[in-house]
Amino acid sequence: MEISQNFDGGNITVLNCVVPSNIQLAIRKDQNSDYYQWFYFRLSGAKNQACVLYILNAQGAAYPGGFENYRVLYSYDRKKWLRHDTEFKDGVLSIKIRPGFDAVYFAYFVPFSMERHHDLVAKALGNDHCSHELLGKTLDGQDMDLLRFSFGDDAKKSNCWIIARQHPGETMAEWWMEGCIEKLLDRNDPLTQRVLSSCNVFLVPNMNPDGSRRGHLRTNAAGKNLNREWETPTLEFSPEVFLVKEKMNATGVDFFLDVHGDEALPYCFIAGTEGLKNWNEQNQSELDFYLNRLAEVNPDFQTEKGYPAKSAGQANMTMSTAQTAGMHDCLAMTLEMPFKDTTATPDSEYGWSTERCKQLSHSCLQVMEELLS
Amino acid sequence: MEISQNFDGGNITVLNCVVPSNIQLAIRKDQNSDYYQWFYFRLSGAKNQACVLYILNAQGAAYPGGFENYRVLYSYDRKKWLRHDTEFKDGVLSIKIRPGFDAVYFAYFVPFSMERHHDLVAKALGNDHCSHELLGKTLDGQDMDLLRFSFGDDAKKSNCWIIARQHPGETMAEWWMEGCIEKLLDRNDPLTQRVLSSCNVFLVPNMNPDGSRRGHLRTNAAGKNLNREWETPTLEFSPEVFLVKEKMNATGVDFFLDVHGDEALPYCFIAGTEGLKNWNEQNQSELDFYLNRLAEVNPDFQTEKGYPAKSAGQANMTMSTAQTAGMHDCLAMTLEMPFKDTTATPDSEYGWSTERCKQLSHSCLQVMEELLS
Amino acid sequence: MEISQNFDGGNITVLNCVVPSNIQLAIRKDQNSDYYQWFYFRLSGAKNQACVLYILNAQGAAYPGGFENYRVLYSYDRKKWLRHDTEFKDGVLSIKIRPGFDAVYFAYFVPFSMERHHDLVAKALGNDHCSHELLGKTLDGQDMDLLRFSFGDDAKKSNCWIIARQHPGETMAEWWMEGCIEKLLDRNDPLTQRVLSSCNVFLVPNMNPDGSRRGHLRTNAAGKNLNREWETPTLEFSPEVFLVKEKMNATGVDFFLDVHGDEALPYCFIAGTEGLKNWNEQNQSELDFYLNRLAEVNPDFQTEKGYPAKSAGQANMTMSTAQTAGMHDCLAMTLEMPFKDTTATPDSEYGWSTERCKQLSHSCLQVMEELLS
Amino acid sequence: MEISQNFDGGNITVLNCVVPSNIQLAIRKDQNSDYYQWFYFRLSGAKNQACVLYILNAQGAAYPGGFENYRVLYSYDRKKWLRHDTEFKDGVLSIKIRPGFDAVYFAYFVPFSMERHHDLVAKALGNDHCSHELLGKTLDGQDMDLLRFSFGDDAKKSNCWIIARQHPGETMAEWWMEGCIEKLLDRNDPLTQRVLSSCNVFLVPNMNPDGSRRGHLRTNAAGKNLNREWETPTLEFSPEVFLVKEKMNATGVDFFLDVHGDEALPYCFIAGTEGLKNWNEQNQSELDFYLNRLAEVNPDFQTEKGYPAKSAGQANMTMSTAQTAGMHDCLAMTLEMPFKDTTATPDSEYGWSTERCKQLSHSCLQVMEELLS
Repeated sequence: MEISQNFDGGNITVLNCVVPSNIQLAIRKDQNSDYYQWFYFRLSGAKNQACVLYILNAQGAAYPGGFENYRVLYSYDRKKWLRHDTEFKDGVLSIKIRPGFDAVYFAYFVPFSMERHHDLVAKALGNDHCSHELLGKTLDGQDMDLLRFSFGDDAKKSNCWIIARQHPGETMAEWWMEGCIEKLLDRNDPLTQRVLSSCNVFLVPNMNPDGSRRGHLRTNAAGKNLNREWETPTLEFSPEVFLVKEKMNATGVDFFLDVHGDEALPYCFIAGTEGLKNWNEQNQSELDFYLNRLAEVNPDFQTEKGYPAKSAGQANMTMSTAQTAGMHDCLAMTLEMPFKDTTATPDSEYGWSTERCKQLSHSCLQVMEELLS
Repeated sequence: MEISQNFDGGNITVLNCVVPSNIQLAIRKDQNSDYYQWFYFRLSGAKNQACVLYILNAQGAAYPGGFENYRVLYSYDRKKWLRHDTEFKDGVLSIKIRPGFDAVYFAYFVPFSMERHHDLVAKALGNDHCSHELLGKTLDGQDMDLLRFSFGDDAKKSNCWIIARQHPGETMAEWWMEGCIEKLLDRNDPLTQRVLSSCNVFLVPNMNPDGSRRGHLRTNAAGKNLNREWETPTLEFSPEVFLVKEKMNATGVDFFLDVHGDEALPYCFIAGTEGLKNWNEQNQSELDFYLNRLAEVNPDFQTEKGYPAKSAGQANMTMSTAQTAGMHDCLAMTLEMPFKDTTATPDSEYGWSTERCKQLSHSCLQVMEELLS
Repeated sequence: MEISQNFDGGNITVLNCVVPSNIQLAIRKDQNSDYYQWFYFRLSGAKNQACVLYILNAQGAAYPGGFENYRVLYSYDRKKWLRHDTEFKDGVLSIKIRPGFDAVYFAYFVPFSMERHHDLVAKALGNDHCSHELLGKTLDGQDMDLLRFSFGDDAKKSNCWIIARQHPGETMAEWWMEGCIEKLLDRNDPLTQRVLSSCNVFLVPNMNPDGSRRGHLRTNAAGKNLNREWETPTLEFSPEVFLVKEKMNATGVDFFLDVHGDEALPYCFIAGTEGLKNWNEQNQSELDFYLNRLAEVNPDFQTEKGYPAKSAGQANMTMSTAQTAGMHDCLAMTLEMPFKDTTATPDSEYGWSTERCKQLSHSCLQVMEELLS
Repeated sequence: MEISQNFDGGNITVLNCVVPSNIQLAIRKDQNSDYYQWFYFRLSGAKNQACVLYILNAQGAAYPGGFENYRVLYSYDRKKWLRHDTEFKDGVLSIKIRPGFDAVYFAYFVPFSMERHHDLVAKALGNDHCSHELLGKTLDGQDMDLLRFSFGDDAKKSNCWIIARQHPGETMAEWWMEGCIEKLLDRNDPLTQRVLSSCNVFLVPNMNPDGSRRGHLRTNAAGKNLNREWETPTLEFSPEVFLVKEKMNATGVDFFLDVHGDEALPYCFIAGTEGLKNWNEQNQSELDFYLNRLAEVNPDFQTEKGYPAKSAGQANMTMSTAQTAGMHDCLAMTLEMPFKDTTATPDSEYGWSTERCKQLSHSCLQVMEELLS
């Protein structure tokens, strides 16, 4: 019986793996950081045995509330990921399972590897209406890929920026991006035609390649939470933000969406930038339109639950949205999807799933187009 | 304009990448070793520009002859890999190309990533007639995966061992394995039925995960050429061989095939163990049957060109085949496929291709079954 | 050199097929009718020869204007259908082509066979939220298939009826239906979720199986134009309409769409029922909403060109829309798609294509849902 | 509750379809013939009801023994066909089943429609090494399609003729052909390379299009059993044989295989032409080689059960094999596959399946090549 985690995005430490009924594990901290919660590993050699896996340090995770009522993802073939009940008690997360095959993978959410990232970018490139720019390198020397989708070259188009996975453990954000890119590659789709006739869509499918490959929850290779680096990013510690912000300044930004996952809240929701000093009615009206229309269009999205709006002047300017809204005077929003499932539209087998991430991306594009047109 | 190589299997060093017509590159040596020849990188930002890429240290590669008449692999979408002419002159390999898209990948042969390896093993597992064993870990902490295919459990079956990719840059060996596994998973295939009714087939799809991920040509993380470690493998420097050899001793071996690629020779061929002290007519007859029948069955394989057979007593016992044949008194062979193409059955577009690797694996299984039945 | 047409939907008569440069053909009339325009046949044995095919009776077709600026569909593999220029002169339609393979198919639009129809219905059935009813039989003894899609069983839902291919040669109508069914089968799609939460969607994918199989343009086996049978359909001559109308009366109808193709006009457009005696502002407002919103949502649809609206009281009550709107007091519309291409959004390779039919069906569902919610 | 059969290949007559537990059916005779046994129909409107379907005239079928221990094919989606037990008692075949969906198809064996036939031929044509000839027309005006596969144009190649589905209800014969064509289209397959380097392979994928579309068991539109027409075929009553025989005489024949299904015998086997007057040792030796090698290569094939060999001089010269062997002095064989399943290698879920038909075709090609090389 063995535990493996030495692969793209893998994360676990084995404390004891001798008796199937008492497999003791701990999640590794992000490099140069105290954050941890993402896990991803393989259990081998336990076919048909009654196993209990204990994640002993669950209580100290970034969002221990994320482990309450949490159902872990598992897969035999790395394609189909199903949900399985867990128990969170006395600060320990336990998984009772009898594996059906010689090896089974467990993950906090469905993994999205850097290989898949490269495939996704490469697939997009072979299309006339998509161009690619390498913005620069991460601290580990990986590429910061930017994709730009547009029909024709009208300078009057809106510049729409969408970024994902500042927090690498929030893999649903890159599944959302895969759906978004698939949609924008479909020339025959009328939504795509409307969007790309009126917008230049800039996508950063993965803001944090180093954290992704290292199996981090929240930070880059330097241990920085990128979504607290937008005020004064540096090439030394947060080149990912530095490079993207620089490019955004060069193109201008008329719409900004930052795609995330929330460990604890079982809802899809959006956070705005009401905390900006000069937040005004026009801003609120645009935000309201986006939220209400998105809820109308996509049953998985809702507007009742989420983060409380900040009072004017209380915005955290180190975050991508406040920084971007402040600098470019545009609608800037954080989209949050659950690690668990949505409360109103649950799916007992898959929970919040990659397919639903993709569908939500289509709805977000639709409402963006309606807002801007 | 940028060169990237920081991904699974990537290998290149950039000396100068400013002027498209003079991109100067060098291949990185394997860790703790002087071997090098495998390369794999991406060129970005040179769409529609006339580029010349120079690999300046080509002369010092392990097999400089491999660069003569060599046609490099390139791909835009990472799925379709085509061939492109190169020139090898004054010890420098040069590639003249005008990329059709914003990014283009180059590789010494079609890459086979560790993610693909994991997918392959996972796909095999969900079948009743395939079982998996984790033999242990590599020096980098990766898994040594063993697959066993068999119908039923008859102890009298032949134990057939096939291993691939001791030399990690010889990726065709794992493409061969993918074909072999696909065939053995097809329950309705009559060849599969014959093979698995009479044999236990043990497969090590990747003997060198560390070298594979690191972008090595020939060695593991300790700089060891695994195919010179079979006499006295150690857990310290060559755990890959140690673990596999140990398991082979446990099961016994009736047939052994070690799958490789040859940098220079434009042929598919097999090397036997004629150099063993006690090589006899029976041994020669089995080897002859396998070679001649394989040439009959598969037009890509031939028996005229290859390595010269050694005289009795001259065998290199540090190699997998000599060691295995000596210990288990069985037919043990090294299969070599070209990096270039076959001379008699060339394909101008793809050269030696992943599809042909897979077809050859089916033929090898067929002749193995005919030999043993 | 041979012409074949004896297959599902085939239609042509050979007058002379001896010299490649002068192949003389005529379109067969619909059974018991003078209508004709649909053709579908195979030319064999003319590989690499310069052929000219003349359809000598083109002038007498139902809509000779349909042959002006018409580009014929052709296919080698029966999957990919491309466009090819024709000439319409002196009442003769001519096709100059040098076939690339031994056999080539020509058709007025991409064929949709009854086998494909059966596959489509069967695929839909294996889903909990789709049920099937066999309404009865056609004159040739084929089935009148009705599909009903709905989530749950709320009696308060809107009953939406969509029918297609009353005119069997308008195959684009069933391609539209295939797109519609594919969308409604995708449980994860938010549009599907909204539609099926508030509507019972009743689909008749093919109103005219007999005409379809016989290769008719416009009528059923009795030579009846079904879209002139809605006032007093009979089991003897128009059972297709009789059965569907009866069922519509049983369920009630809150929304009705009848999907067609137009031979001459190079536009997607909708015709309403303004000719009804009691047409009122509320009716007009609903129709306007549907048309304007559909044009907004789908660039292929437009509102400027189409059939002129009739004056109040001038409605043809034998047509499906007038009859249904009159009886059920609901929005009832005829959707027309071009045989040629759209003027504003042309595609030189495919013209109006099956893929665009499918996309338009999705847009129609979207606007239907917006209208009813 | 309704029974439908008016589609390609459909065959049933409804005697009584009112009470689910007593659905009374009869198989229709072939046109102008007393043969019947093939059936293919759809039952609608019986979801979740306990149904019993009685085929009342089963005893009078061509091979009533075929209904003993017979397991009927059924399908909901027309793609996946599973087996279901039947009972054959007092001359009546009964099927007890509780359909899981609104419609379910039943068939004597997995149907193969003329649409699928056209798709298969069209797919083959788009390849340089495949050519097509339209030999002429059937009595119903359908095409007699001939495919020829070959690499290059060496006149010294063996001319291998394979025909299938003289008896249209033996659909497994055309599934076999689909497998054969798929294999011959794969240029990278070494078997294909060997075969097409040494042989011209002539395929008639469907000898009896009229019987196929009409839902016949055994005859063409004129009620002729084509496999009794080879001595003196006529354009008036058996153009299918006339045209093919004529073309065979033109090319010469070095190998002939006629692919069939057997209603009663649960085995794959081959019948030779031992009944020829001049049958000699050389003939016997070739036949023995083919049979024994095929049994070696494919576990589904066997040599113990089958039709008894005729004595020299007792051959029925009206059959394709005797006629062809006599005229061309070549090996000519009838391949029989079961409607039921193979006794030695049974599959409880699928029985004899389309996938196994295809695999057997590959094995037949392999042994043909070994015989001729």
